[in-house]
Amino acid sequence: MTIIGVGLIGGSLARVCKEKNLIGRITGFGRNESNLKKGVELGVIDSYTLDLKEAVRNVDIVLLATPVGVMVDIVKIMIPHLKEGTIITDVGSVKGYLVDKIEELLPKGIPFVGGHPIAGSERSGVESSLPTLFKNYNCILTPTEKTDREALKKIEELWYSAGAKVILMDAKDHDRILAAISHLPHVVAYALVNTIGDICKEEDNLLSLAAGGFKDFTRIASSDSVMWCDICLLNRDNILEIITQFKGALERLRRYIKEENGTRLKEEFNKANSIRNLIC
Amino acid sequence: MTIIGVGLIGGSLARVCKEKNLIGRITGFGRNESNLKKGVELGVIDSYTLDLKEAVRNVDIVLLATPVGVMVDIVKIMIPHLKEGTIITDVGSVKGYLVDKIEELLPKGIPFVGGHPIAGSERSGVESSLPTLFKNYNCILTPTEKTDREALKKIEELWYSAGAKVILMDAKDHDRILAAISHLPHVVAYALVNTIGDICKEEDNLLSLAAGGFKDFTRIASSDSVMWCDICLLNRDNILEIITQFKGALERLRRYIKEENGTRLKEEFNKANSIRNLIC
Repeated sequence: MTIIGVGLIGGSLARVCKEKNLIGRITGFGRNESNLKKGVELGVIDSYTLDLKEAVRNVDIVLLATPVGVMVDIVKIMIPHLKEGTIITDVGSVKGYLVDKIEELLPKGIPFVGGHPIAGSERSGVESSLPTLFKNYNCILTPTEKTDREALKKIEELWYSAGAKVILMDAKDHDRILAAISHLPHVVAYALVNTIGDICKEEDNLLSLAAGGFKDFTRIASSDSVMWCDICLLNRDNILEIITQFKGALERLRRYIKEENGTRLKEEFNKANSIRNLIC
Repeated sequence: MTIIGVGLIGGSLARVCKEKNLIGRITGFGRNESNLKKGVELGVIDSYTLDLKEAVRNVDIVLLATPVGVMVDIVKIMIPHLKEGTIITDVGSVKGYLVDKIEELLPKGIPFVGGHPIAGSERSGVESSLPTLFKNYNCILTPTEKTDREALKKIEELWYSAGAKVILMDAKDHDRILAAISHLPHVVAYALVNTIGDICKEEDNLLSLAAGGFKDFTRIASSDSVMWCDICLLNRDNILEIITQFKGALERLRRYIKEENGTRLKEEFNKANSIRNLIC
């Protein structure tokens, strides 16, 4: 197996494969040589190369685990060097665009399985990778009519071995749902932290007073900016739509506060309490 | 000491007093008798009463630990029954309005010290109280020109004993800062969870897919609705102001996503990364 992008997610899946002896040699490819060296030192990958052609030659599985914005270009470059039967799969947080583009590009005989493990952390890099990262988390796979069933089965088994619960879903549904439960919270957290940052210029000690609740709430605003920029651009329409809905919900609260309408405000807060209880 | 409202905060401070033997008997007052009974059973308070007059008669300290919306009315009722020298203090999340009103109401000889321990949790009720709740957290006290210095010293010592770091601050500054670091995040979390709730009606399995990040991010949307309604109404102007600033920050992100301006989007995300790193 070759892992393109040996970071938190790619590294964690590599660790699973090593620990459970699922797969032969694991090669890492990336742009950052010191990160790849660290991957070898930590035993996450067996070897690395900075040459993409070499990286994908003669392997059974290529796992795309880079920021989603560069995946299609990487696929374009690797295609002439792939042997027939190499399964391409990914872990990108956006699926519709990627699945469409990659399926369009790949020749017959090179199966693709779109995937997205809904696990992770605001940390990044191979040094944060853990073989238990996916345990009990959902992993969404987004097969299409074109998807090779044998390839799908192999990738499903890989995620089962990592302890994940595999869910099959249409790529477009995935993107709409993830826009709501993951992409919107990230955008909101970034906006919230930037709001606080702007005020800090005027208020001394503001940040140092931030309580536990604020830290938890804004943890995801520490997430990698390149990765999240890519996600926002590739799932643009769904994210714009959900931001509009969020603005409506926020505006309702703002209006009830402005009008000092305690009854409505409590109703809104109670509604959130109930929904939150359904999640946890 | 008498604690008016034996919940998470009042109960936790009572536990500190018991554990460190700081204070004689602790009486609890509240509306919910089963909660007060539980307080006695758990050893948090020594006794309770449902009669406010009786509760505050002949005590050294009265701690107001109810939702902030009822504190002023409670003070009005208790005044005729207080002995000279009884210190009134509170733990409310809003200070300006309360400090003004309570100082105006209390006669000479009954000192008031406004306070707000910036600790807590989305849990509530005496059964969640912990003697360590305030340890290493900030507790803001908001003395004014009128504040009795001896009373202030006593309340400072109480919070030091609880392990808190005491910060003295102007009540108006407190409200502006807390609007940013605590009240805004709560309003945003409530709006976010309600947005997801509205979509759930159309999308199956949406909530069950919510990842760890979403759960952490929305934890504070489980907070008590009455308490947060009161806070929003009593710190209305600061909260409206900060919501407006937040809407501006969100709108910037929305625009950059809409315009597919990756450079600006990454700048905004990097800015949030840096601010977040200053906090943690």
